[in-house]
Amino acid sequence: MQELGKQQKMVIGMVGLPARGKTYISRKICRYLNWMGFKSKVFNIGNYRRQICGTDCNSNFFDPGNKDASKARDECALLALNDMINYLRNEGDVSLYDGTNTTKQRRKLIMETLQQKFSEVQVFWVESICNDEDVILRNIQLTKLNNPDYVGKSSDEATQDFQQRIEQYAKVYEPIDMDENISFIKIIDIGNDIMIYNIQGFLQSKLVSYLMNLHIYPRPIYLSRHGESQYNVVHKVGGDSDLTQTGLMYAKQLGKYFIQELEGSRNIKMFTSTMQRALHTSNEVCEFLGVEYYSLKALDEINPGICDGLTYQQIADKFPQDYEERKMNKLTYRYPRGESYLDVISRVEQIIFEIERSRLPVIVIAHQAILRCLYAYFHEHEVPEIPKLNIPLHQVIKLVPAAYYCKETRIKIDPMTGHWEIQDEATIKKVKSFLDL
Amino acid sequence: MQELGKQQKMVIGMVGLPARGKTYISRKICRYLNWMGFKSKVFNIGNYRRQICGTDCNSNFFDPGNKDASKARDECALLALNDMINYLRNEGDVSLYDGTNTTKQRRKLIMETLQQKFSEVQVFWVESICNDEDVILRNIQLTKLNNPDYVGKSSDEATQDFQQRIEQYAKVYEPIDMDENISFIKIIDIGNDIMIYNIQGFLQSKLVSYLMNLHIYPRPIYLSRHGESQYNVVHKVGGDSDLTQTGLMYAKQLGKYFIQELEGSRNIKMFTSTMQRALHTSNEVCEFLGVEYYSLKALDEINPGICDGLTYQQIADKFPQDYEERKMNKLTYRYPRGESYLDVISRVEQIIFEIERSRLPVIVIAHQAILRCLYAYFHEHEVPEIPKLNIPLHQVIKLVPAAYYCKETRIKIDPMTGHWEIQDEATIKKVKSFLDL
Ligand SMILES: Nc1ncnc2c1ncn2[C@@H]1O[C@H](COP(=O)(O)OP(=O)(O)OP(=O)(O)O)[C@@H](O)[C@H]1O
Ligand SMILES: Nc1ncnc2c1ncn2[C@@H]1O[C@H](COP(=O)(O)OP(=O)(O)OP(=O)(O)O)[C@@H](O)[C@H]1O
Ligand SMILES: [Mg+2]
Ligand SMILES: [Mg+2]
Repeated sequence: MQELGKQQKMVIGMVGLPARGKTYISRKICRYLNWMGFKSKVFNIGNYRRQICGTDCNSNFFDPGNKDASKARDECALLALNDMINYLRNEGDVSLYDGTNTTKQRRKLIMETLQQKFSEVQVFWVESICNDEDVILRNIQLTKLNNPDYVGKSSDEATQDFQQRIEQYAKVYEPIDMDENISFIKIIDIGNDIMIYNIQGFLQSKLVSYLMNLHIYPRPIYLSRHGESQYNVVHKVGGDSDLTQTGLMYAKQLGKYFIQELEGSRNIKMFTSTMQRALHTSNEVCEFLGVEYYSLKALDEINPGICDGLTYQQIADKFPQDYEERKMNKLTYRYPRGESYLDVISRVEQIIFEIERSRLPVIVIAHQAILRCLYAYFHEHEVPEIPKLNIPLHQVIKLVPAAYYCKETRIKIDPMTGHWEIQDEATIKKVKSFLDL
Repeated sequence: MQELGKQQKMVIGMVGLPARGKTYISRKICRYLNWMGFKSKVFNIGNYRRQICGTDCNSNFFDPGNKDASKARDECALLALNDMINYLRNEGDVSLYDGTNTTKQRRKLIMETLQQKFSEVQVFWVESICNDEDVILRNIQLTKLNNPDYVGKSSDEATQDFQQRIEQYAKVYEPIDMDENISFIKIIDIGNDIMIYNIQGFLQSKLVSYLMNLHIYPRPIYLSRHGESQYNVVHKVGGDSDLTQTGLMYAKQLGKYFIQELEGSRNIKMFTSTMQRALHTSNEVCEFLGVEYYSLKALDEINPGICDGLTYQQIADKFPQDYEERKMNKLTYRYPRGESYLDVISRVEQIIFEIERSRLPVIVIAHQAILRCLYAYFHEHEVPEIPKLNIPLHQVIKLVPAAYYCKETRIKIDPMTGHWEIQDEATIKKVKSFLDL
């Protein structure tokens, strides 16, 4: 039995001047691929350079005329390349080669080296082109000033030096040409303009569809489970039970929360499942906000097959072997006639695309297993952790995209009193380690 | 409750010289959209021209210097535009404006007209660029020679005239420019090179992902249900039952069929579900062919929810209201705790993309409702017909893409004797009308 996209190893090479979002994009791709089940890792050439050449490198280090520095930089690039190849030879499915790779010569060297070392490897290039001075300045301010390279330097000094670094690269920059006969995607103007060439195979197709949806609007994403349901109260699994009184009260408090949080704005996108407990929660919220939701079967809770309607104790009694198996392998275990977490990841992928694409705030009202999968994608959790992630009832998880990751806040809402308890990232970590004990 | 992609009407404008696949592409898009639930229709300007100006138009008619002809052609374009607008005002979600639209002026006129007539409409342009003389010649031979325009002319005459027609258009052709400030996709070199610009919204995103996968390799697609299962014999719905002896024999005969049909080739892509009856059928075929399959949950049979394991008679007795409802609305009816045909269409969409993308022959071994959905997509059936399509056991449906549609052949395989009975398109139509009585 084959798996889609796993016939060949893949190397993704980033291309672009500094501060064009290469590291941002490669980390997103890496997270998406790992989430989808492709073992991936980013090899950042800048990190190699800092380790080997130190961090006291001003823009002169990047002058293409500086022979010694160029030699050192080439060595770093090759070291990263070798580590990347080893990773693929061992456990990796996809390596991301995160560097400027701005000359045809460099790209050719990489292609030739890879073709020597592997009988069969796919190479896919991702070039980010951006000529908007404001965006570049913003990128520098957000991500370069607190770079190890600029410890002890003032903002202005660092900004100026970085801009000079960009100019050094620009002197020799050769954007990807079709003549190079490589498979690539050019992301121009933060994705407004995209060019793809010679796309090969399942994974490259998927990546292009994925990358098309990315943008850098810092819109918040809110995840919440439905309010307490009747099955929750009796600890039954599955079902399509309705909200309890408490659950209904949570739904109303959730509506009030959002009115305040969104300052009365209706410009949001709300997604929910087709199950009663989620629909009824969403109905309440929508009444408060004056908006409509999208109800998608793809957000329905994990299907527990023959265990539907049983408590965990009943499952342990009736199907002891399955119960044990699930405890051992909660990620891959598939309920007979039902689903596994891997199946759920596969079906909520389209929701990830819709959330990524949205420039408006997004609210998802769904279910525990579903939100575990979505949350793991946004918050860069290892896939094996997914089935254990803590997503309790009556809590909103707010994720705000920052430079490379999401800032997380949790808002516990008391269904009775409507009182909010806001937990920031540090508290969330403490709660998590407590639960792990 | 909102539906993804239905917030605004959409017009898709085709752009390109003659014989660049505009009609081919617009018909595929139209079929895909209808299948996905977006009421769509193609408005072919050539058809309007033929109706109004007659079919006796040689290449001089297309000379931009020919004032009378140009005026007539403009009028046809506007008539088509008006009909298209009316369609959107009434029942349509998407109109496809299938014409050359090769000048900026023409495109600007269309944009302005649409913006006048609609407060909110999305316009998306699809340009096909092809400079491969062999491909163009092939396109002319396949699709232009038997055009109403060339009745009574010899192949050579017609080919030459058509090539002159292309040259008339080429004189004034202005490929889409980013300055025009329109959303577009340029499909260059039959999709090897693609440019997208200013993509807006759910539907445009989907269309780009879809179009990226298209090619014109005439690879065959084979659809077959699993062999007879135990539940089939007792007329039970759902379940995960195994093959009967007869079913197993069909699986082996199917393997033998494919060995002959594919002439021993192993260069194929095979997809099946995760259900026993399909897996065991596929196992047999794979043993004969020496290939491996992809087992995808997306191909699992429609989930009959609470009716799982019941016969249709039992369903009629236990759930008479549901039974009646399903009879009335078989397409939209969702089994309680289960799925509807619309849900199935949504989940097999990814399979459609995989099949489209494949340049190798494709074999799908799956289930009745699943194959009804896939078959309807490839064979251009109206969506409401899907639940009634005739997909019996022990029969292979072979679809071979031709110029604008798929040629269908059915091969009935006797599980006992291994005897094949081949039904061509005409016979299939006869059988169908017989079953409709
Ligand atoms: N397509 C894009 N174009 C321009 N900027 C982008 C794009 N995508 C993300 N960004 C922004 O880029 C910033 C991160 O820059 P990043 O560090 O990834 O650049 P880089 O190209 O890796 O720079 P360097 O070459 O110095 O490593 C973030 O502020 C992010 O919002
Ligand atoms: N992207 C493409 N580039 C070139 N040819 C294509 C492409 N897609 C499909 N084709 C081929 O185009 C042929 C059909 O041509 P079609 O009639 O659609 O061209 P057209 O542009 O509509 O021509 P006309 O302007 O005369 O109406 C088929 O043989 C098909 O295989
Ligand atoms: Mg970087
Ligand atoms: Mg045409």
